[in-house]
Order: sequence, then C-alpha cells, then structure tokens
Amino acid sequence: MTGERTVVMITSPLEAEHAGRIAQAFPDHIELIYRSDLMPPTRYVGDHGDPNWRRTPEQEREWRDLLHRAEVLWDFPQNEQASVLELAPRLRWVQTTSAGVGPLVQRLGLQDADLIVTTASGIHAQPLAEFVFAALLFHSKELGRLQAEQRGRQWHRFCGIELAGRTMAIVGPGKIGREISRIAHAFRMRVVAMGRNNDPARAEALGVDRLYARNALPAMLAEADCLVLCAPQTPETDGLMGPAEFAALKPGVVFVNIGRGTLLDEKALLQALRDGTIAFAALDVFPTEPLPADSPLWEMPNVLINPHSASTVDTENAKLVDVFTRNLDHYLRGELDAMTPLLDKRKLY
Amino acid sequence: MTGERTVVMITSPLEAEHAGRIAQAFPDHIELIYRSDLMPPTRYVGDHGDPNWRRTPEQEREWRDLLHRAEVLWDFPQNEQASVLELAPRLRWVQTTSAGVGPLVQRLGLQDADLIVTTASGIHAQPLAEFVFAALLFHSKELGRLQAEQRGRQWHRFCGIELAGRTMAIVGPGKIGREISRIAHAFRMRVVAMGRNNDPARAEALGVDRLYARNALPAMLAEADCLVLCAPQTPETDGLMGPAEFAALKPGVVFVNIGRGTLLDEKALLQALRDGTIAFAALDVFPTEPLPADSPLWEMPNVLINPHSASTVDTENAKLVDVFTRNLDHYLRGELDAMTPLLDKRKLY
Repeated sequence: MTGERTVVMITSPLEAEHAGRIAQAFPDHIELIYRSDLMPPTRYVGDHGDPNWRRTPEQEREWRDLLHRAEVLWDFPQNEQASVLELAPRLRWVQTTSAGVGPLVQRLGLQDADLIVTTASGIHAQPLAEFVFAALLFHSKELGRLQAEQRGRQWHRFCGIELAGRTMAIVGPGKIGREISRIAHAFRMRVVAMGRNNDPARAEALGVDRLYARNALPAMLAEADCLVLCAPQTPETDGLMGPAEFAALKPGVVFVNIGRGTLLDEKALLQALRDGTIAFAALDVFPTEPLPADSPLWEMPNVLINPHSASTVDTENAKLVDVFTRNLDHYLRGELDAMTPLLDKRKLY
Repeated sequence: MTGERTVVMITSPLEAEHAGRIAQAFPDHIELIYRSDLMPPTRYVGDHGDPNWRRTPEQEREWRDLLHRAEVLWDFPQNEQASVLELAPRLRWVQTTSAGVGPLVQRLGLQDADLIVTTASGIHAQPLAEFVFAALLFHSKELGRLQAEQRGRQWHRFCGIELAGRTMAIVGPGKIGREISRIAHAFRMRVVAMGRNNDPARAEALGVDRLYARNALPAMLAEADCLVLCAPQTPETDGLMGPAEFAALKPGVVFVNIGRGTLLDEKALLQALRDGTIAFAALDVFPTEPLPADSPLWEMPNVLINPHSASTVDTENAKLVDVFTRNLDHYLRGELDAMTPLLDKRKLY
C-alpha cells in the first residue's frame, strides 16, 4: 500500500457523508473523485440516479477527463454511448450499487474483459424479504377490504387466512430466497424452493424444507400458496414462468416478483390474474421500466405495483459503503481473491 | 370413566364437523348436547355468535331445559339475564372460545364460584401476531401511498423503511407477545417488553432483549418504533396508556392494539394520532364494540380499523376442539389439575 494513490471515482449519486467515509477509510492510499455537481440530483434517499438526467457538453468534457484517470469506479457510468473501457482505459474494478448487473455487463460487452465486477448482491435481501411479507400479509389479512369497509363505517366481523401451515415457494434460493425462507419459517410456514439441483444437503444449507430441481418446477408450483420469484436474469431464467407454469399453480395463490420482469411471460401472468389462479400479485419489476402507462396491470384490483423500489431503504448506502471499503482494503493489498460478492461473468449473477 | 355419562353442552355456534369430533372422542362417556337450531346462525367461519340474535320464547324454554342438565359447557351462554349457576345448577366446568374472559367472569359474579374455567388463551397468538406484522409492514412499505399512485398510473421511485434494526415494544409479554417477539427477531428487530417485573431470567424465558417493570413503562415507550398492546383487561391494565404514556413515545411510531379497548385513554390516542406521535395505528379492539358510527377514528387516514376479527382464522375452531378434547379427557379421569389454560379468577387472565 505504497506509491501512487489509487484513483477511485464515484459515478452515481451518493450522500456526502458516505463519500466522506470512503475517503477517510484510506486517506493515504486513494484519491477520491466525488463530484456531485456532475451527477444527477438525488430524488430520494438511496437514489442511484435519474436515467433521464443529462450533463451539459461542458460538464460532459470534465466528466470524461475524470473518468480517464479512474482505476476504480463506484457504479458503471450511466448513459454513456462510448465503451466503458475506452472512457476509462485504466479501469480495473467496478463496484455496482445493484445486484442484478449480469445483463448490463453483457450489454456493455464486458464478459471477457479483464475487469473485476463486485455487486450489491445480498444488500437487498432483507428489504426485499420484508416486501414479500408486506404483500402476503396485505392479502391474507384482507387489508384492502378492511380499508373499503372503514370508508363506509362498516363493522363486519370476518374470518381471515392464517399464514401458519401454508406453503411458501421460492424460485431462486440465493441470498434473498434464504432470507424469505427464514422469515417464512418464523411464521410457521412450510418452505419449498427451486434451485439448479435438488441435493438434500443443499436444501438443508439453504434452509428450505424441500428443494426441487429445475425440471420439477411444475410439481413445486402445484404446492405453492405463495410464489416468489427472486432469481437473477440469465438466459436460463428468461421466461421461466410461461403459460404452462402458471397453469400448474393452485387457484388463489399470492404471487410476488422481486427478481426481474423478464422471468415471466406477461400475457400468461395477465391470464392467471384474470382467471383466479393468482388471487393477488405484488410486482416490483417489469420487462419495461417505468411500467408503460397503457399497461393493463395498473388498473387490476388484485395487483399491487411497486416502482422497482422494494429494495430501496434508508440504510442501503451505508451497507454498500461497508461492502465497498472492505473490498477496497483487499484491492489495495492485492488480495483480489478475497473481494466479494463477485459477478460471475459466465453465469451472469 | 364409568357410570353415568357426563352431559356436555355446546352453547355457541360450532361447525357440525367439530361437534362430531368431540362426540366421537368419548363415545361411551359423554352425552353431547349440540342444537344448532337453538343457537345463532354463523355469519362466517369461526363465528362464535351474533350477540343480537334471540331465541323465540318456545326455543328459550327448550334451551333452558337443556342447560339445566349440563355439567360441562362449551362457552358461557350469551344474553341470559339469569345467573349461569341458576340456569345450569350442575355446572362444574366452562371451556370458553375467547381468551380474555376475566371481565365476563367478574360481570357474571363467578370469581368465587366453585367452577373451572378454561380459556382459548394461546389459540389466537399466531393470527394476532400475523396481524401485527401486516399492519407494521403496510405502513413501513408505504402500501397505502403505492395504491394511490397506482390509481394515478404514477411511477415514482422512493426510499422505504427497513424493519431490521428497529425496536418492537410489547405491552403484555404473554403467549401473544412471545409470538410477536419471535417473528420480530426473524425480521432482525430489537424487542423490548413490559412485564410485571424485570427479572433478566424472565426476559430470557420470554425471548425479549430487555424487559421493563411496570413503573419503567415510559422508558420503554421512548425506545419504541412499533408499540403493540396485547395485555389482558384487568384493573391493573385499565387505562394503562394515558396522556403521559402517549407523550413518552418518539414521534412517528406504529401503534397496534390487539389487547382490549380499555387499555388506553381514547382521547389521548386521538391526540397522538393528530399530532404525529403515532404515524399509523391498527386497532382491532375498542372500548365499545362495534365501534360507534360517530367515532372520529373511522375517518382518520392514519388508522386501520379491524372489527375485532384479527384473531379469527379458518383454523381456530379445530384448534379449540383440540384444547377442549384434551381437557375433557383430563376432566373425565378426574385429573383436574392437568386442565389448561385455566382462568385465574383472581388475576382475571
């Protein structure tokens, strides 16, 4: 950790206190480029940037001069037409603020580049799991109906659904799936999941009651009272939930998508929402975001739309800075193998 | 278990399949009186009876003849002007379908009667805990705002609240409180509770991070991000949350009452809802039920009203029959000490 300082550049909005923590962690070893004036203004705590914001030509020149010097980036620069490696020829490592960056890396043509990509994988597990139970309990405890009866000052006693004893089915038993499984067990639910294989030891490591292999997906779907998609977007998961898969569900399931919009066939989803297969759906991700104004999903009474914000909580950037400074310490010491979580550029997650 | 059959009478609505299970459990030892025609019709699964329903005079005569023979009752008879012990002079044991029957037993003048009262205590812990998290997550994940934005087809990304790291405060760490504590820990919340004493061994047995004695209630309230009342109604808990207690809260708490309406001073609650002390309240119980049509609570945007149905789930009567048949087995064998959960007629819970 001697010699020239490593140039680290922040390329997406970050609160000054967090940037300060990075600078102060390695005062003698890094030069931190943090120019909030050259980045989009933040719209909310934890905002990683309005994609419609643009720099002036003069700002863009200054921005590119800075990028040219950077060896480490906090986030891929947004809205750049040129290749990242042309813009930042000294670049060796990017820490992203998102977990599912496989498709982005592919789009940027960086699968074969000699570039370390560490991600936000794991950071969002807790808030996303919380959103799953917010949606499941909203439906099970009939809060929508209670709100309507309250508006009419109506007191109608009723019988609700108990989560205990129901089956939570998870597609994508990674860090998010494990968090959902742990909380589901606290609610005394049964938990099943689909993984790439159904090894019993792996089921135990994942903390699920039963693990189904990919080719047994329909059997798992037939068991679900609540189905959660939290798989990454890869060629293998694209369109995973098609008409046959939705048809394998029991009627009346609660469906939550916190993975990617491309995991499902939207026509099949609409059909399942209309024919009662899905009693209630909470959707945080869509094939096109923002969700187009003419989407029929907006008006469906059994759909809750979240503008891809289920993972965004006030503690997010503090946790990301923890990940980044830990990795930066390893990077500066040359301990590249210790950096985590790494994007696997073959598997794309 | 020989000799005359014990006369067991069902006095509140119960599905025939459940009554059948009781009759079949002890075919040679009990005579089961189950007359659904003399009880209110059920309005929903798990309904224990419309208090406004009345028998005809002829039905009432038949009903009283049956009560006169009963030694064991499933529930106290509703709407009877005469004393229970006059109506049922052979009565030795009542199994109630509610947990909080202390005030009822007091009103019936039975504190000193030689009568066993077993309750539904514990049966409702799971559904009530589920309702607490339904309310807490509804607020924390801003589902009300999301619904409003969805109606306007608006896509506004935002930053939500994470439950992890927040403090759950529980008044009444009994079976319900313990269930809430277990689930709160799964959400990585800190849990504090008020009990009758603050012995560390008791805190550990209850599964809470810190236990406050009754006289330290304000200190506990100052820590709460979410406050849940799940204490029974006793002279000690009457008006427990008055103006001073609401004033001890941090601004912005989520408040849930699943105990009894009398635990709080309603004026102080209204004030706390109006001045921002309470950001959101979910209320399942009220001093007068049904909640009067002129109550200001109906129209408050930060209040969710549940018509005392948070504990009612489709599995309730099956669980109650499990409790009852287990107790009936003990009763028939003369193992009265093994019957549980017993109402303590001094403590009134």
